[in-house]
Amino acid sequence: MAAIKVHGSPLSTNTLRVLAAVYEKELDHEFVLVDKSAGEHKKEHFLSTHNPFGQVPAFEDGDLKLFESRAITRYIACEYADKGTQLIYQDSKKMAITSVWMEVEGQQYEQIAAKLAWELVYKPLLLGMSADKAIVEENEPKLAKVLDIYESRLAQSKYLGGDCFTLADLHHLPTLHYLFGTQVKKLFDSRPHVSAWIADITARPAWLKALAALQSQQ
Amino acid sequence: MAAIKVHGSPLSTNTLRVLAAVYEKELDHEFVLVDKSAGEHKKEHFLSTHNPFGQVPAFEDGDLKLFESRAITRYIACEYADKGTQLIYQDSKKMAITSVWMEVEGQQYEQIAAKLAWELVYKPLLLGMSADKAIVEENEPKLAKVLDIYESRLAQSKYLGGDCFTLADLHHLPTLHYLFGTQVKKLFDSRPHVSAWIADITARPAWLKALAALQSQQ
Repeated sequence: MAAIKVHGSPLSTNTLRVLAAVYEKELDHEFVLVDKSAGEHKKEHFLSTHNPFGQVPAFEDGDLKLFESRAITRYIACEYADKGTQLIYQDSKKMAITSVWMEVEGQQYEQIAAKLAWELVYKPLLLGMSADKAIVEENEPKLAKVLDIYESRLAQSKYLGGDCFTLADLHHLPTLHYLFGTQVKKLFDSRPHVSAWIADITARPAWLKALAALQSQQ
Repeated sequence: MAAIKVHGSPLSTNTLRVLAAVYEKELDHEFVLVDKSAGEHKKEHFLSTHNPFGQVPAFEDGDLKLFESRAITRYIACEYADKGTQLIYQDSKKMAITSVWMEVEGQQYEQIAAKLAWELVYKPLLLGMSADKAIVEENEPKLAKVLDIYESRLAQSKYLGGDCFTLADLHHLPTLHYLFGTQVKKLFDSRPHVSAWIADITARPAWLKALAALQSQQ
């Protein structure tokens, strides 16, 4: 039995974020499907054992239990520094700059991208409802503004955190993947450095494996 | 001239977060006032030199320039590990659990607390407008739900990240400080472990110094 377990569910961007890190590190692991349609993530066992917030993913490495996808990927990157892809820098200043762009993802990008993904992907898919146009129209220009800053950054630096692919890039992959199937794709395509960055990071073998692994659970 | 500079402005919770870490570490530093009323944070110089998002705080340590308050505090905690209060754990598993609660602050608590602080503190104070009751009524129960989870956590553990005060606690201080002057205070007061935790962390000498330092800029 694998020491590492990822408890997650299909369509969950946060689950995908953790799987992307697990595959970059080539870690043996077991995927444990959490049946959200049966409300498994809100049941007492899941709440008390895995995540009191009732969200996926949850993560185990032996007796260590974690939740919050970005905390899990940081743990994986640090604990398994010698395996697979280096996802963080050892140098403290390079790491600090990478942390800045990790926070930009969590505090700026994701707040907007998640709203657009909810309206344009999940609402139609899960609830059979159409997107709220007002919310989309409010958030598209906000995303464009963030992407203008990414465009400048990526004109100077191959990846967000520096010369190497790091967690700062990886953390964007799941929401990007879903938004790329929507009208919002044009905002990424129209910015050449952003567009080249996306082509690069979405072609990573580990990412394609993570996607395929989660899709096989559907 | 101090190598460390904190560019910030009064009333900014994100500036306070960084100052709290700077004072915990007893770091020599210079505070550089950013005149937000004159729109200094949106001017070309600030955007190109300090933060392309046009937000405070920004941070310098010699030639290293950072933004995003939580990335700055992480850098301070790692780079100055030997000075002042230990704000992170060296042990990777303890640190992973601390990271979980740092993400809980950034992704769960702050999203709700910032909305309440905007309605109940900043709108009346800065714009002379009254709070939008619907937004307050929507977010109060959400905050209560998060605090129920904190109450359980703090029944088992003196601080959020473990037995010691860490960045996971420190990151909460600024928004807590402002919400404590509002009707939302009752949500904290009614939970005994949360209440004891707040009494503890808000009495820290470094926090009181950080608060006084920022207030002296007003």
